[in-house]
Amino acid sequence: MKHRQVLEMRKSTNRDPTNNHAASIAVLGAGGLGMAAAKIIAKKKEMKLAAIADKTGYVIDIDGIDPELLENKKPGDIGKRTDDAISEIIKSSENFDGIFIALPNLTNRFIPDIVSGFAGQGYNGVMVDALKRSQAVEMIFGLDNMLNDAGITYITGAGATPGLLTCAAAIAANSFMEVIGVDINFGVGVANWESYRATIREDIAHLEGFNLEKAANMTCAEIKEELDNRNGILHLHNMEHADDVLLEKAGIVSCEKVKVGGVVDTRNPRKPVSTTMTLTGRTFDGAVSSHRFILGDETTMAANVVGPALGWMKAGLEFHARGIYGVFGSAEIMPRFVL
Amino acid sequence: MKHRQVLEMRKSTNRDPTNNHAASIAVLGAGGLGMAAAKIIAKKKEMKLAAIADKTGYVIDIDGIDPELLENKKPGDIGKRTDDAISEIIKSSENFDGIFIALPNLTNRFIPDIVSGFAGQGYNGVMVDALKRSQAVEMIFGLDNMLNDAGITYITGAGATPGLLTCAAAIAANSFMEVIGVDINFGVGVANWESYRATIREDIAHLEGFNLEKAANMTCAEIKEELDNRNGILHLHNMEHADDVLLEKAGIVSCEKVKVGGVVDTRNPRKPVSTTMTLTGRTFDGAVSSHRFILGDETTMAANVVGPALGWMKAGLEFHARGIYGVFGSAEIMPRFVL
Repeated sequence: MKHRQVLEMRKSTNRDPTNNHAASIAVLGAGGLGMAAAKIIAKKKEMKLAAIADKTGYVIDIDGIDPELLENKKPGDIGKRTDDAISEIIKSSENFDGIFIALPNLTNRFIPDIVSGFAGQGYNGVMVDALKRSQAVEMIFGLDNMLNDAGITYITGAGATPGLLTCAAAIAANSFMEVIGVDINFGVGVANWESYRATIREDIAHLEGFNLEKAANMTCAEIKEELDNRNGILHLHNMEHADDVLLEKAGIVSCEKVKVGGVVDTRNPRKPVSTTMTLTGRTFDGAVSSHRFILGDETTMAANVVGPALGWMKAGLEFHARGIYGVFGSAEIMPRFVL
Repeated sequence: MKHRQVLEMRKSTNRDPTNNHAASIAVLGAGGLGMAAAKIIAKKKEMKLAAIADKTGYVIDIDGIDPELLENKKPGDIGKRTDDAISEIIKSSENFDGIFIALPNLTNRFIPDIVSGFAGQGYNGVMVDALKRSQAVEMIFGLDNMLNDAGITYITGAGATPGLLTCAAAIAANSFMEVIGVDINFGVGVANWESYRATIREDIAHLEGFNLEKAANMTCAEIKEELDNRNGILHLHNMEHADDVLLEKAGIVSCEKVKVGGVVDTRNPRKPVSTTMTLTGRTFDGAVSSHRFILGDETTMAANVVGPALGWMKAGLEFHARGIYGVFGSAEIMPRFVL
């Protein structure tokens, strides 16, 4: 890995446009988020897509994979077919500066187990996830010592929410002596649920009367029927969302004061409500007031998850180059704009 | 200095409430911002006010100064009178983990010269400023090698704007492939201009027909007359504000695409407009959209400048403990909520 080079990149904003110091990134998952990551990385000078893997198989090309090859295809279609692609990525992991985990996470253990696999096989680069559930993020924090010993710099909860909005809350908190509450209300619109199967399935698991196991066992037809019954719209309240754990870990506010909910329209790319983070606090001079961070309605979930995730990847590469390892939450480190 | 202890604090959110590891902070300046800093630091477990200095003199008490002693008083009234208080702070600087520079900055050289003085006399802790003008911030960046060699971790432009809003812009940028523009429009209300003489004087320097020299040479009566002519309200456009330099330095957007303006009411603590940062960009999928960060109207300039400045002080203490020195802009590091 080219740690020194990554560090040097940071020190200079007028970088050589022909530089070959782009960090090699492996993307785990090739659903909506994984494919968006492939497209975004292809447009970045500081990163290249060196591998992508999902349940169909994997492709590795350390010179950079052209995302057009993946258009309407799966990794197994253009690379090697296997039902154990993650193990193949782990075997080749010395080639990757960073791993972005964009896999569905229907059981809490799934991603922590994969991460342990990387550490156990000697991987010592950067890892970033876009996990959403509090329990899964807590399990990742439980790997802090293991990842620190392995020399892995890991950033968890590094998507949109948790992620971009959590980090905005952490910054907003600085105006206040005491944070009274954080309220995140998201709007998501997708043209059809099939493009974000795993995400929508996980959203269904948060509905009243559902849980992770039940959602995981539903057939696609059952998901479709459930969505039909709700006119394609999911109203979510008091979700188990790791913004709470991440803000508590950063010392900003205790878990129970963080509320996350939202509205998901599975039939319309237009957002049903503007995604807003509202942080309410008390200032040193006694005023109670709220700072708000509002995402532009035209920005998609993919843009708001993957862009920040790669921003945290860059931050992680910088920390790693400085020898700073272990697990960090997205409310503890600032994502760094990737050139 | 207690670097190891500061670092340890970061690793634990369940800190010993009786710990004596509070970082010793010296505040330079005892105007509106300096006095707010004294009050805020007094309420924080992780910091203590070890010194405060202005043109009247200075007080040093490494066990912590009670800010009530300063109520309606100046440092020279309760400590030692001298017209060279900064030199006295420099002489004692080995006692301070961090220095917050809250001095008026009517010439661009003033604060960079003070910083050079600290480095020249062997200070090797953390320094944070709330400078506003682009040229002054650029001069601080010019000290990077000197401060790096001295072992000083310095964060510049670390107030509200530049500062809190610049950092929010840097985070918001991650959703986009390209940032088209950043627009900062602030509203400030102060009950009377006398509480924020230096700040209001600097704002007047930005008005058409005025400059820094002219504003610096105005008598208080002339300032009052100018404010009377404008019914106490200053409309500011296209200000020379370091948000531009800081965002360019962080690789996010070129200087000329950052616009800063605002409305200052010098007779009413209520804000005439809500302070808003709007970042417009183009996403990977071609959408043009804007994220916004809006400050609560009830939060004062003091809360929004000093809270974040101390947040960057904590971030600087963490970096310093890890041996990371030199100059950083407020768009490159995340401020860390101070307990």
